[in-house]
Amino acid sequence: MASREVGIALLGVGIVGGAVARTITEQGDVIEARTGIRLVVRRALARSRERVVQAGLPPEVATTEIEEVVGDERVDVVVEAMGGEEPAATYLRRSLEAGKHVVTANKEALAKNFAELAAAARASGRALLFEASVGGGIPLMASLRQILADNRVTRIRGIVNGTTNYILTQMAERRTAYAEALREAQRLGYAEPDPTADVEGYDAAYKLAILASLAAGRHIRPEQVDRTGITGVTPEQVAEARARGGAIKLIAGAELDGEEWRLRVAPEFVPGDHLLAHVRLNFNAVEITGDRVGPVVLYGQGAGPLPTASAIVSDILDAARFGAALTPHIVPQMSRT
Amino acid sequence: MASREVGIALLGVGIVGGAVARTITEQGDVIEARTGIRLVVRRALARSRERVVQAGLPPEVATTEIEEVVGDERVDVVVEAMGGEEPAATYLRRSLEAGKHVVTANKEALAKNFAELAAAARASGRALLFEASVGGGIPLMASLRQILADNRVTRIRGIVNGTTNYILTQMAERRTAYAEALREAQRLGYAEPDPTADVEGYDAAYKLAILASLAAGRHIRPEQVDRTGITGVTPEQVAEARARGGAIKLIAGAELDGEEWRLRVAPEFVPGDHLLAHVRLNFNAVEITGDRVGPVVLYGQGAGPLPTASAIVSDILDAARFGAALTPHIVPQMSRT
Repeated sequence: MASREVGIALLGVGIVGGAVARTITEQGDVIEARTGIRLVVRRALARSRERVVQAGLPPEVATTEIEEVVGDERVDVVVEAMGGEEPAATYLRRSLEAGKHVVTANKEALAKNFAELAAAARASGRALLFEASVGGGIPLMASLRQILADNRVTRIRGIVNGTTNYILTQMAERRTAYAEALREAQRLGYAEPDPTADVEGYDAAYKLAILASLAAGRHIRPEQVDRTGITGVTPEQVAEARARGGAIKLIAGAELDGEEWRLRVAPEFVPGDHLLAHVRLNFNAVEITGDRVGPVVLYGQGAGPLPTASAIVSDILDAARFGAALTPHIVPQMSRT
Repeated sequence: MASREVGIALLGVGIVGGAVARTITEQGDVIEARTGIRLVVRRALARSRERVVQAGLPPEVATTEIEEVVGDERVDVVVEAMGGEEPAATYLRRSLEAGKHVVTANKEALAKNFAELAAAARASGRALLFEASVGGGIPLMASLRQILADNRVTRIRGIVNGTTNYILTQMAERRTAYAEALREAQRLGYAEPDPTADVEGYDAAYKLAILASLAAGRHIRPEQVDRTGITGVTPEQVAEARARGGAIKLIAGAELDGEEWRLRVAPEFVPGDHLLAHVRLNFNAVEITGDRVGPVVLYGQGAGPLPTASAIVSDILDAARFGAALTPHIVPQMSRT
């Protein structure tokens, strides 16, 4: 089988971007043998050339200018792993307008700009793929796409934030208080020095907005999520839940109520006969309910450089092979609430 | 968006084939709006015209001759839902040779003829898709395909037979003996009048052989599975497992040991801190372990006409859109054991 080269640009060469670079280097031959596609990193946008070299890339691919990425005809797929809404969202839009396929791990930029980015991708006939934005390496988007082919999805419920699940697991199994469990999570690198985005439920709300937008086919914005974090959860509540055979979990839930989607992130009691009660430590799990398949649950590591890079590389290959056919239809919503 | 018609032939219009026909009729407009593809059933191979009409199809599509299916130029995708190895495997091969995409729910025909069918599909540049053959509506193949893009899968472990899981759940939760739980499963239609294929582990062995073949990239045959059924499981064993916080489950497991895959279907104790211990009733769950994503678990209804038809319709749409790109590479094994 004759191989073809697919040119990659990395926006951001931090932990995730670096893992993508290393995956392409280390797994390149295996991927080529399996798919006939040779992945070649042709640009890497980073603050310093040093970072690019540390990721094992040749120094000449390094750039600090987005123009050098979108203007490079040898770049077929732009991979964004910068995080944060801006400038990431602008770079994604400009890449699509320049005719590049786009793969992103950025839940915040996507959740806030989903309709605009999907429209830009469709207008230029390119792929917008984002498997790594929710649930790390869990094949959530691939599964949701398949289920949506002939199901109406009316309900999504999941544990989509590993940090808070780790803290709640420690509180339940080691009988520690919230503050102590948080410190332990920070020590292990599961929680950031400023843990707000995780423990106040912002991260979960971004992810829920993305999943709900796909199910609804229209842009559901993170501000529409009724959000409560875990900072108020007491050791007594956790112990009582455990005594009843269940667990307190930070549940991200979206439910179709008539024509309206109701979205909520909050600590909830999950009874022991439900699978979500048994999702421990920093694992994630999402239950998707379709009118024909019934409930489907997907479980795995929701974060970490290797699982996330794995999802990104899979998206790159899908973009190269199937292009715009995988780009979702997401219409803007009528009115903002 | 201009729609295009995709012609379907159904081989078998029993419970699953009938559900596919009804899904296409009932969901046709929604599918067309979402994908731009109009599904049209042009042939239905069945013993009687009556069955075809009962499934809501026009009488003129009925046929009893496979020649009329493979020779019909208006048929793009052949959907096989007959079950059993023959004549299904021959019909699948002839359909591929005639240039049709093929979608099958038939675990036995596939497990026994995987390399031959994959080779026929690749030779004619057509899709061979089989999401419904394992795990009903659970997006197992879509997930495995994504994981395999850049992971080496070294281990697969799952509950892939709903009948035996229902029986073992009843034994554990209602403290009934095997024979009584089997009768209850038969009464509810979860078990066949002759339950051998389920309770002796043949069904699970076919499914495991398919999953392992995909992970290995070569044909692993069902005869290679070391197989023990659940007929010898005692109420005492089940009660003891429950007292230890876990459960006895019929586990289908494949593990890479050096260069060799070891395959086994057998009742096993699963500890309570593992998700598989909490898969109840007739549900299925499969854990796939990749070297980069770690363990991923997929859970859902493993059987039933609606979930199965849902997976088949999704495969039909994938075949129409992506064709041979989704056909797996499965080489014959060197020597037969």
